[in-house]
Amino acid sequence: MSAALPERASDLLDGMRRRRPRVHCLMNGVVPKLVADGLSALDAIPSMTSSPEEVGHFVARADALLVNLGTLDAQRREAIGIAVSVAAERGRPWALDPAHCDYSPPRAAFAQQLLTRGPAVLRANAAEYDLLSVPAGVVAVRTGKQDRIAQNGATFSVANGHPLAAMVTGTGCLSGALIAAFLAIETDAFMAASAAMLIFGVACEMAGKTASGPGSFEPALLDALAALSGDHILQHARIAHEQG
Amino acid sequence: MSAALPERASDLLDGMRRRRPRVHCLMNGVVPKLVADGLSALDAIPSMTSSPEEVGHFVARADALLVNLGTLDAQRREAIGIAVSVAAERGRPWALDPAHCDYSPPRAAFAQQLLTRGPAVLRANAAEYDLLSVPAGVVAVRTGKQDRIAQNGATFSVANGHPLAAMVTGTGCLSGALIAAFLAIETDAFMAASAAMLIFGVACEMAGKTASGPGSFEPALLDALAALSGDHILQHARIAHEQG
Amino acid sequence: MSAALPERASDLLDGMRRRRPRVHCLMNGVVPKLVADGLSALDAIPSMTSSPEEVGHFVARADALLVNLGTLDAQRREAIGIAVSVAAERGRPWALDPAHCDYSPPRAAFAQQLLTRGPAVLRANAAEYDLLSVPAGVVAVRTGKQDRIAQNGATFSVANGHPLAAMVTGTGCLSGALIAAFLAIETDAFMAASAAMLIFGVACEMAGKTASGPGSFEPALLDALAALSGDHILQHARIAHEQG
Repeated sequence: MSAALPERASDLLDGMRRRRPRVHCLMNGVVPKLVADGLSALDAIPSMTSSPEEVGHFVARADALLVNLGTLDAQRREAIGIAVSVAAERGRPWALDPAHCDYSPPRAAFAQQLLTRGPAVLRANAAEYDLLSVPAGVVAVRTGKQDRIAQNGATFSVANGHPLAAMVTGTGCLSGALIAAFLAIETDAFMAASAAMLIFGVACEMAGKTASGPGSFEPALLDALAALSGDHILQHARIAHEQG
Repeated sequence: MSAALPERASDLLDGMRRRRPRVHCLMNGVVPKLVADGLSALDAIPSMTSSPEEVGHFVARADALLVNLGTLDAQRREAIGIAVSVAAERGRPWALDPAHCDYSPPRAAFAQQLLTRGPAVLRANAAEYDLLSVPAGVVAVRTGKQDRIAQNGATFSVANGHPLAAMVTGTGCLSGALIAAFLAIETDAFMAASAAMLIFGVACEMAGKTASGPGSFEPALLDALAALSGDHILQHARIAHEQG
Repeated sequence: MSAALPERASDLLDGMRRRRPRVHCLMNGVVPKLVADGLSALDAIPSMTSSPEEVGHFVARADALLVNLGTLDAQRREAIGIAVSVAAERGRPWALDPAHCDYSPPRAAFAQQLLTRGPAVLRANAAEYDLLSVPAGVVAVRTGKQDRIAQNGATFSVANGHPLAAMVTGTGCLSGALIAAFLAIETDAFMAASAAMLIFGVACEMAGKTASGPGSFEPALLDALAALSGDHILQHARIAHEQG
C-alpha cells in the first residue's frame, strides 16, 4: 500500500497545477505572505482576509479553507465562526492548524471546540497535538522530524524534509495551507493530507540542497515548490505505511 | 508622443532618488513589508500605520498616499476615511488600489464610493477594473500582461514586465505604491502613473533574468529597483501611445 | 575596558545558542516575520501575538519581552499594558522600541509613559531618541551609522554594520528584538544591549559582503545570524568605550 502514495501524490500535484483551486486562509498576522506565496508556487490561488464583514464572501468563492489560530483576537474568532459556517453550508472542506495553542489555554479550548465543527484535517506539531483530543474521522497530521498522517488506525509517515525548515517561521503554517489546497481537489482527506505533506517534504529537501542558511532557504523553498513535478515526487519519496 | 514617456520616466526616477518623498500606505496585512521595501529601494520613505488614532498624523507628514483595500475591516475603513480627508485638506495626491474587490460586494461598493472622493489614480487588475465605474479625470491603470494607463481618451501601454511577478503575492500592490510615490513628485498624474508602471515593468524584467523561480524573484526585484537608473529605462522601455 | 565587550558578546552568543530563551514580541504588523526569523536564526524562540485575551499567557511563558510601538491601535495599547504588567509581576526584563514615535504625538506620549514602567533598555533611532526623556537606569541605545549604548554615563559605540541594512524595513526592529533576547540570558542590561548591537552589526557586515542589493541583503542577514560564531565577533568587533 505504501507504494500508492507517491503515485497518487504525483498525480495530485499535476492536478493542482491544472485545476488551480482557490484556497481561503484565516491566517495569523505573522506569515500570511509566505503562505500566499507558497500556495501560488503550486498554482493554487490564495486569499487571506479575516474581516468578519467580508470573510463569508471570500469563503463562498473558495474551494477549500484553512483555519490557522495564530494571533487570535475577538475579531478573528468571529471571522473563524463565520468562515466555518459558510464552509459547512457550501460543503467546502477545511483544515485546522491550532498554531501555538500550547502557549495559551483559551486558544487550546477554542481549538478543541473547532474540532467538533467538522474539519477534514488537523495539522499540529507535537506540543499542540498532545493537548487536543481528535474526534474519530478527522485526519490527524502531527508534524516533526517525521510527519505522521493518521486516520482510523491507518498511518503514513513521511521522512522527507530538511532541518532548516524549522528555523523559518511559517513553514508549518504553509504545510497546513497545502493540506487545504489538496483537500480542494481530492475528496479522500487522508490521501490529500498525505500527498500535501509528502510534496512539502520533497520541496524542503530540494531547497536544502541550495540554501546556505534559513534566510536563503525560504526563497529556495518557494522556487522548489514552483519547479516540483510529479516525477520528483516519485524519485524522492521516503514514506512508510501502516494499516490499522 | 510615445517617445516622451521613457525620457520623462528616466528623469522622474532620478528625481525620486534625489527628493525621497514620504509615502503613507494604508495597506493590507499580507504584504506591507514588500511594499515598504520596494518603496525604500527607490529611495522613497514609506510609512504604514492604519490605526484611526494615528493615521491622520502620518498622512499629514506624507507627500502622497496609497489606499489599498486588502483585508478590509471596520477599523481600516475608518482609517481610510480619515486618511482621505487629511489628504484632501492638505492637497496631497493619492492612489486607490481596490485589491480583491471582485471577491466581496461590500468591498466593491466601498471602492466605488472612494472613487468619488478624488483619487488621482486607480490601479486595478482586469477583474477588479471591470466592476468599477471610473469618474472622468481619474487616471485608470489596468494591470495585466500589458499594463494600460488611460486618462481622457489618451493611453499608454507598457509591455515591460515578467511572468514571475504574477506568482509573487503583493507585486501588484507594490506597483500601486510606486504610483503614489511618483504622484508625490509629478503633478501630471497620467505621467506619474505611466512612469511608475514603466519603471516597475523594467525592474521586473531585470529581476526575471537572474531569478530561478518566484522565491528568488522577490529579492531580485528589490535589488533591481535599487539598482535601476534612468539609462536602464531609456534602453529597455517597450511602450505604445494612443492619443484619444 | 573596551576589550571586555567582544569577549563577553562572544560568550553570550554561545550561551544564546545553548539556552534558547523564549522572547515574546509585541510587534507592529509590518515586519513580524523578519523579527521572528532573526530571533530563530540566533536559536532564540519567538512568539508574536498581540491579542489582549492571550498576551498575558504568552508573556508568562517568555524569558523576555519586546514592546515595539509600530502600527499602534487601541487593542495593541491594551495588550502592551497587560504584557508590561505580567513582565513586572514575573520579573521578566523588557526592551522598548518606540518605532516611528516621531511621526505621531500620541505615540510619543505613549512611549514616554512606558519609559516610566521599567523597561531595561530603550532602542531608538536619532529622530525618535531626541523626542524622549530617558529615566536614569534605563539603558539607552541610539542606532545609526554608529550605534551608541549608554547607561549612567558609560557608553559603548559599535561601528560594525552595513548601509544596506537601512534600506530593509524592519532591521531596526530586529535589533530591538535581539536586545530582548540577550536580556533573557544576561542580567547586566548594559552588557546585554551592547552585545546584541555588536552581534547584529557584525552579522550586517557579513551579509553586506554577499548581497547585491537590499533584496538579497535580507536573506543574507538571516544566514549570517545563523552562521555567526563567537570567533567571528572576536575577529570583527569595532567598538569604542567611554567610562562616565
